[in-house]
Amino acid sequence: MKIAIVGLGYWGPNLVRNFISSGMVDGIICCDLIQPRLDRIKKQFPMIETTSSFDQVLQRSDVDGVVLATPVSSHHPLGMKALEAGKHLLVEKPLTVSTQEAEELLESAEDKKLTLMVDHTFIYTSAVRKIKEYIMNEQIGDILYFDSVRVNLGLFQHDTNVIWDLAPHDLSIMDYIIGKKPISVSAIGVNHFNGHEDMAYITVGFEDNLIAHFHVNWISPVKVRKILIGGTKLMVVYDDMEPSDKIKIYDKGVEIKSQDTIHHVLVEYRSGNMFAPHIDQKEALSLVVKDFLDSIKTGKKPVSDGTSGLNVVKILESADKSLKMGGQAIHLNGNFNGGNQNQLSFFNKHSLKSIHN
Amino acid sequence: MKIAIVGLGYWGPNLVRNFISSGMVDGIICCDLIQPRLDRIKKQFPMIETTSSFDQVLQRSDVDGVVLATPVSSHHPLGMKALEAGKHLLVEKPLTVSTQEAEELLESAEDKKLTLMVDHTFIYTSAVRKIKEYIMNEQIGDILYFDSVRVNLGLFQHDTNVIWDLAPHDLSIMDYIIGKKPISVSAIGVNHFNGHEDMAYITVGFEDNLIAHFHVNWISPVKVRKILIGGTKLMVVYDDMEPSDKIKIYDKGVEIKSQDTIHHVLVEYRSGNMFAPHIDQKEALSLVVKDFLDSIKTGKKPVSDGTSGLNVVKILESADKSLKMGGQAIHLNGNFNGGNQNQLSFFNKHSLKSIHN
Amino acid sequence: MKIAIVGLGYWGPNLVRNFISSGMVDGIICCDLIQPRLDRIKKQFPMIETTSSFDQVLQRSDVDGVVLATPVSSHHPLGMKALEAGKHLLVEKPLTVSTQEAEELLESAEDKKLTLMVDHTFIYTSAVRKIKEYIMNEQIGDILYFDSVRVNLGLFQHDTNVIWDLAPHDLSIMDYIIGKKPISVSAIGVNHFNGHEDMAYITVGFEDNLIAHFHVNWISPVKVRKILIGGTKLMVVYDDMEPSDKIKIYDKGVEIKSQDTIHHVLVEYRSGNMFAPHIDQKEALSLVVKDFLDSIKTGKKPVSDGTSGLNVVKILESADKSLKMGGQAIHLNGNFNGGNQNQLSFFNKHSLKSIHN
Amino acid sequence: MKIAIVGLGYWGPNLVRNFISSGMVDGIICCDLIQPRLDRIKKQFPMIETTSSFDQVLQRSDVDGVVLATPVSSHHPLGMKALEAGKHLLVEKPLTVSTQEAEELLESAEDKKLTLMVDHTFIYTSAVRKIKEYIMNEQIGDILYFDSVRVNLGLFQHDTNVIWDLAPHDLSIMDYIIGKKPISVSAIGVNHFNGHEDMAYITVGFEDNLIAHFHVNWISPVKVRKILIGGTKLMVVYDDMEPSDKIKIYDKGVEIKSQDTIHHVLVEYRSGNMFAPHIDQKEALSLVVKDFLDSIKTGKKPVSDGTSGLNVVKILESADKSLKMGGQAIHLNGNFNGGNQNQLSFFNKHSLKSIHN
Repeated sequence: MKIAIVGLGYWGPNLVRNFISSGMVDGIICCDLIQPRLDRIKKQFPMIETTSSFDQVLQRSDVDGVVLATPVSSHHPLGMKALEAGKHLLVEKPLTVSTQEAEELLESAEDKKLTLMVDHTFIYTSAVRKIKEYIMNEQIGDILYFDSVRVNLGLFQHDTNVIWDLAPHDLSIMDYIIGKKPISVSAIGVNHFNGHEDMAYITVGFEDNLIAHFHVNWISPVKVRKILIGGTKLMVVYDDMEPSDKIKIYDKGVEIKSQDTIHHVLVEYRSGNMFAPHIDQKEALSLVVKDFLDSIKTGKKPVSDGTSGLNVVKILESADKSLKMGGQAIHLNGNFNGGNQNQLSFFNKHSLKSIHN
Repeated sequence: MKIAIVGLGYWGPNLVRNFISSGMVDGIICCDLIQPRLDRIKKQFPMIETTSSFDQVLQRSDVDGVVLATPVSSHHPLGMKALEAGKHLLVEKPLTVSTQEAEELLESAEDKKLTLMVDHTFIYTSAVRKIKEYIMNEQIGDILYFDSVRVNLGLFQHDTNVIWDLAPHDLSIMDYIIGKKPISVSAIGVNHFNGHEDMAYITVGFEDNLIAHFHVNWISPVKVRKILIGGTKLMVVYDDMEPSDKIKIYDKGVEIKSQDTIHHVLVEYRSGNMFAPHIDQKEALSLVVKDFLDSIKTGKKPVSDGTSGLNVVKILESADKSLKMGGQAIHLNGNFNGGNQNQLSFFNKHSLKSIHN
Repeated sequence: MKIAIVGLGYWGPNLVRNFISSGMVDGIICCDLIQPRLDRIKKQFPMIETTSSFDQVLQRSDVDGVVLATPVSSHHPLGMKALEAGKHLLVEKPLTVSTQEAEELLESAEDKKLTLMVDHTFIYTSAVRKIKEYIMNEQIGDILYFDSVRVNLGLFQHDTNVIWDLAPHDLSIMDYIIGKKPISVSAIGVNHFNGHEDMAYITVGFEDNLIAHFHVNWISPVKVRKILIGGTKLMVVYDDMEPSDKIKIYDKGVEIKSQDTIHHVLVEYRSGNMFAPHIDQKEALSLVVKDFLDSIKTGKKPVSDGTSGLNVVKILESADKSLKMGGQAIHLNGNFNGGNQNQLSFFNKHSLKSIHN
Repeated sequence: MKIAIVGLGYWGPNLVRNFISSGMVDGIICCDLIQPRLDRIKKQFPMIETTSSFDQVLQRSDVDGVVLATPVSSHHPLGMKALEAGKHLLVEKPLTVSTQEAEELLESAEDKKLTLMVDHTFIYTSAVRKIKEYIMNEQIGDILYFDSVRVNLGLFQHDTNVIWDLAPHDLSIMDYIIGKKPISVSAIGVNHFNGHEDMAYITVGFEDNLIAHFHVNWISPVKVRKILIGGTKLMVVYDDMEPSDKIKIYDKGVEIKSQDTIHHVLVEYRSGNMFAPHIDQKEALSLVVKDFLDSIKTGKKPVSDGTSGLNVVKILESADKSLKMGGQAIHLNGNFNGGNQNQLSFFNKHSLKSIHN
């Protein structure tokens, strides 16, 4: 199996390293228009091939898959070409700049029976997979809310706002964890420096009073990457800045004891133990790479498949629309594909030890 | 000077204790309809008088001021009576349940030249006053955003939602710190237990791209009380859960270096020192009490005057309206009284030592 | 049952409050030589009696127990008198200024079949009792070490050094948790201000390579109160400064896999989950008071009995001796009474839920 | 200039990378007896030469300096040979296994006018250099104590105890920061697994009541790397586990107000601001490499020169001696070379901005 990696800027070299160390590929072709980038990667990994011609990559019959680590606006044109040339496709997040583009990629991949995958790296982290385990084992109960903060003194992007830059991480985690169709999206953001929005708040509504909320910010003095998940049985705090104990599971909550009228609810608090499961240190990107290669080999769907990419793009697009309308809620139509329920190939559903007994 | 304290539930006894220890009052009359509460407070402070008759309190010519620590719905009727009886008035937060009620209290107090004050305790804390000092000394620069999180596994209130319960603290801090007129309010909230909203997000918009955002929540497994303030010169993190170093001032930020087109901004990061000013441990409520008594004596306006109370109620009312309209922005009309700029009697504007040299 | 509380300085009033709220005493007599202290406590708790005569207290046949919250040098003379007058005795920590004094109190109490108890408040905290539960249920395994840090910008004492001021807390916790006889004590300390030692390190040795170490310090810029306990099965971090999750239990450790020669050990690491048991908020002093009153009533031994007080004084005395000899180890003779293994009346040995399954 | 790096185990490749990126060397020769290590480093850095013969390295006249990243027991024999062959020498920490060996290296280097340097990486970190800046600018005042904790669930070493493994870091920081001659060393340690000591406490005494204390531990459930430095003017907390704000400077302390008798000191507390200077992210090892190459070029002494290495070895050797004598203090003779006062070439003494004004 040979893989072509297109775009050797910031993220590309990480992909090269992980494809090599997977031990599952026979050759790697690196493709970029900027020659010094090719020289640098060749020096670091002398066994790879390099080329500046994307067309030449597609013409090679020995190339099975193409990985796009190029700017997001190029994902659709390059991706369509790759699929048309019969190549399996892994695309950096976000999948595309619009729902329409994403849907065209999905359709094309479906037609040609090719793998279409998006690199939602975070859902391959041990921490997020562990939370999903708790959800799948019905230990969290019904999810009441999903609250995410990802703020930083971050790199301003010239071609996109803070939502398209930071929110794909959290939206993909939400899509994976919640696994339901959102029904509305609203977003409020501010542009303080005459460029794109540098901070924003996004709200995603679901049925049954489930709410998700996101704070993304490039101009925060402190770095925060924290997600709170409230469940009817357990609550979760996922703090990605903690060196250890990234996930804390709280046996805390609220119980309705009785209810005489619609406005009189007797609520009782449950204040119990906290539990921080051990999280392994495996590099998430190595699992992304493995999932892509396994999907090519076996024809299975990867965990972060095209639908997962489409789901995130839909919300990003709606958030942008809402931004422009001053935060008005955008209602999503019914064809949203709610999460990926089937391919939880990471873990054994029954492997989780209960924290209750 | 004699003061009547009405309502001896949770907060009333703290007021009694602080009025006594102020050393500025000659007598305290405690008033409540529930006799055991009166017995308990009398046992603790034998020098006070007690009564179950509010009318009797108002008829006493030796009572100068009335303090209302009663449920919020009673603030307007009891407060109007007290003002009509010629009593200075201190009311627990929030001032009233509606803008109209608040305006009536303000008008009545103005007419009768009486002090009207609301107990926005938090703006009397050393931490918030210290932040205000930095603002007044023009060390923070222009404020870009104000982001507040106040979440907890909190006591569900039967007669109100989480916004009216928790947000007055942060809205009063915002009103005091920012000192500007908001132009729009939107709020999204969820009620998970068939009672009132138990979590909500509020956005307050100002001119010049200044945005304030609030997360209030009764069903969080962890207690967070954190405010980020982004300024063009310095940024502030106020973490009320820190035992010491509640305020951290970061000499971090973003600087526009050049701008060739509207979409091309060259931004540069400034990553500097952090400074945590020493915060004294003075009880905020003792300063509230002192400010009320000083205002009675001298006729000066208290820092958290009626206008401050009205400003907060306006936002709460608009937030409620927005909640019911699914988060649609409510535009505030022009008569909002923007913050309290004049009575910063707490501190010496020039007392602050620069952290730059 | 009536109780006399002697010494109404800093700690005495807390004792009065807890004896009253215990609901187990018919009367309280407060005794102090300083009249204003008596006036203040009488004002706060009008139902108590006051007197400045200790002898008069002892002569009253209706007084069952005496509590000494007086300076440590008075514990022995006043305590001996109280026991001779047939009164049960509760003494603030540390029990006495010397082993000899402590032994005389123990002997006298034994002779007269009276309760002798020392107020080692910390071992009545929920956190320390929870750790003891884990030990008793054999979940920690053999204890390898006990490392304690208690540092602060603390109040310099005029009549004692930092060891006698701060270490009794940690030594009593150690005595309770480990429950074994120490065999050696060494201490190194420094006096920077020509008074008593303001910082010190104490090492206590036990058989089987068990070591305990204590850092006590009055001149630290930050407040730390942290104990690490290493066990062969689990490890414990007890951080008293944490608002919640004071105790964290780590399923981490080291396992010897094989050993070919005395100097070649193959060690393997176990890196597992962390667990923070819910800790109730009960005031420890209320349990001290209850244990004293129960002991008077039933004749049972209190958890922090005279032996516990003696054990701590022995180590303090040896630490002082070692300090003067430049840190040389003091070997304790065989008559050390190793911990209190029998009266763990706090909890049900089998109530602890395993964290392993 | 050409440099030979001997020993390509764990640390060697980091040295290769830093020598290459220094841009100051014309060639690098890597030397190891294990061929796969040489192959691996050659693959990573194709421009280097490799050899398995140390003698051949020494015979090459184009090699200016030798770097030893070999086991500590080999430092003396290989180092002596290198010096005799006229090569400048950089040795990994600790310099040697004994004072005698260290002194022989120093003498030989002095005789031959060659640079002898030890890789005390930590004193080249931005954090430690920043603390030194405060010391040099007389902002800390007289140092009262130096308290270090470095604990972890660490890799057991087969050929050495926890003191020789972990303490060199903290002892080299102490030597650099304090810059005085210690007068005594004592150490208590425990071996729980029939190998070498896996935890230990070391105390180092200086004149004028200055004390340093070290806790090193391989069997702690949590990772702690924290140093407290108490000064008469300011106090410092250096927490190497903090992602940012590693150094906090506290304007807190104790002041003697008056003193009537030797045992009656009136002490007053100063509780002021906290300041966290910005710390740059420069890799410390790159500065080690630069200091070595600069020293070769100019003949200047490097900051962590042979004396610095000798100072640390002296304390390690004394600590071992004290361990074997049950913690008895070892008195150091007068020829200890107290710290490195002269070569503070890192920083401009007057560049530090005062935090007082």
